Amino acid sequence: MRSLDPYVPGEQPQDQQYVKLNTNESPYPPSPKVEQAIHNFDINTLRLYPDPESLELRSALATQHNLVAEQVFVGNGSDEVLAHCFQAFFQQSSALLFPDISYSFYPVYCALYKIEYQQIALDDSFEINIDDYRQAHGGIILPNPNAPTGIALPLDSIRRLLEASDSVVVIDEAYVDFGAESADSLIDRYDNLLVTQTFSKSRSLAGLRLGYALGHSDLIEALNRVKNSFNSYPIDRMASIAAIASVNDQSYIEACNQKVIDSRNRLSESLLQIGFKVFPSSSNFIFVEHKTAAAAELYQALKQRGILVRYFKSTRIDNCLRITVGTDEQCHQLVQALASILES
Amino acid sequence: MRSLDPYVPGEQPQDQQYVKLNTNESPYPPSPKVEQAIHNFDINTLRLYPDPESLELRSALATQHNLVAEQVFVGNGSDEVLAHCFQAFFQQSSALLFPDISYSFYPVYCALYKIEYQQIALDDSFEINIDDYRQAHGGIILPNPNAPTGIALPLDSIRRLLEASDSVVVIDEAYVDFGAESADSLIDRYDNLLVTQTFSKSRSLAGLRLGYALGHSDLIEALNRVKNSFNSYPIDRMASIAAIASVNDQSYIEACNQKVIDSRNRLSESLLQIGFKVFPSSSNFIFVEHKTAAAAELYQALKQRGILVRYFKSTRIDNCLRITVGTDEQCHQLVQALASILES
Repeated sequence: MRSLDPYVPGEQPQDQQYVKLNTNESPYPPSPKVEQAIHNFDINTLRLYPDPESLELRSALATQHNLVAEQVFVGNGSDEVLAHCFQAFFQQSSALLFPDISYSFYPVYCALYKIEYQQIALDDSFEINIDDYRQAHGGIILPNPNAPTGIALPLDSIRRLLEASDSVVVIDEAYVDFGAESADSLIDRYDNLLVTQTFSKSRSLAGLRLGYALGHSDLIEALNRVKNSFNSYPIDRMASIAAIASVNDQSYIEACNQKVIDSRNRLSESLLQIGFKVFPSSSNFIFVEHKTAAAAELYQALKQRGILVRYFKSTRIDNCLRITVGTDEQCHQLVQALASILES
Repeated sequence: MRSLDPYVPGEQPQDQQYVKLNTNESPYPPSPKVEQAIHNFDINTLRLYPDPESLELRSALATQHNLVAEQVFVGNGSDEVLAHCFQAFFQQSSALLFPDISYSFYPVYCALYKIEYQQIALDDSFEINIDDYRQAHGGIILPNPNAPTGIALPLDSIRRLLEASDSVVVIDEAYVDFGAESADSLIDRYDNLLVTQTFSKSRSLAGLRLGYALGHSDLIEALNRVKNSFNSYPIDRMASIAAIASVNDQSYIEACNQKVIDSRNRLSESLLQIGFKVFPSSSNFIFVEHKTAAAAELYQALKQRGILVRYFKSTRIDNCLRITVGTDEQCHQLVQALASILES
């Protein structure tokens, strides 16, 4: 275990005194139906184990995605779902492929499960070129939109990728609800496609720990074999009823997401005006690089002013910042702070 | 993954029409302080990730066990904690040792992580003989009290086991609060000892999914490396505040556990009187064998009468039943049903 180099999540200061634009949480509260569901929940039932199959929650998600419950797997956050995917599908004789700039948990899972991988370079605009994935491989995983760039792939590119692969292709859609197109509509056509989503971003439930995977029932069955060899009951009773309430309030979720999209567009425009390059985002965050100021210094100066953004000290992106789209008020504070830092 | 033979938990009928004495849940509700904590919880904070370190919960548990937070690891149920233990400690060149009659999840973890193991036979009274573990090994795991027998080992035997081992020894104390002695007091003396406990039994919180491990900070650090390579945030915000409230209401918990112990003693006496052999239990369940009636048939006949108990179709114990201690009323129903089945 000493050789493991674990994933490091964004800072989570417990005093909550920061304007927190570093871990892509929603600035809006969960659906009022979540509050109601928790209010009505009978605490006494906590003495009993939950349904190990989480059938009610899986059925609600299936309905939401025009699938059946056998095509849905749920886990304790999409990180757990992804971990099970790596263990179930990617321990192959050929290398797993994923972008060189991508979710930094992927290489960590590979180390944990001893999976060989090859990182495929994004082009100079930080875009994924699907043709680069036409080579021998034991699996493919792509975030769509990608993180931390925020750039989305059109569904047609995902389709071409699936046509060219005999292995399992995981499309990690943690941020899909902010402007990209979900590949869930391709599941009935491609039995090697697995789509993962989360309640942490667009559903304002990062504190609840719920993620899920959608795919052919054979892939879901494989995930269940791993899950049931690891932990029979990953979803607690309160998380389950809260998640179901959220799924059943789609209009609230969509209204919040639209507010984030609108704020993102305004924030992008403001940052352009003070000298930032802004990558085209379909996410609830933007990825930016300043023409002259160093990202590491901007990160520190913002932190001193009580604003947290995410800085990755990694090849190719170590002069960029990833900024979560907050409320318009928070975005305004950020722009003011950056303008003041840049002037000084 | 096709070769995995996953763990099968006890039946969890979702209609709850059974007298449910099959999965060792508490018949009593969680502490009223849990209800209060959930009532006071600000649902809006669910939009934010929880503390990835769960420091507040770990500190509460540390205080409870006279340890420090660095000696405490928490997970999504003790099954997840155990899974991480198997991955972190037991992938060794020598075999892991555990009893032949024990928690049936252990061989499943071994299959998942490709761990070689050797099962050590309990003696004819279904007791663990510590001297049988004095052989080359890569680790030892023992439930204390053992499941499904319910029989406890004295602390002195655990101490002798620790003296004789250079490997990690995990004492799985899921049921320790019903009459056995915890090995938590030995942690400062033996750096190879890890003790696991759960909120699912004695704390009436099976529906919340919380378990933990106590041990030397080096062992906890190894578990953290695995956890942080798997899922950064396993404990959700509501589970955390509910668990802390439970830890802070020790007198309520102890009163419930005493009621279970008293009911267990009465139930054992009643079953003796209708021809059962009852193994000496220090748990919230009893393990029984009837002089003449077959366990498989008793299990079915009880189920037809709306009472669920646990039957394991496994070598050496396939004529036994494991019966969770319910309320006195539930125990009475069970005894009446068994008496009526045996008479017919």
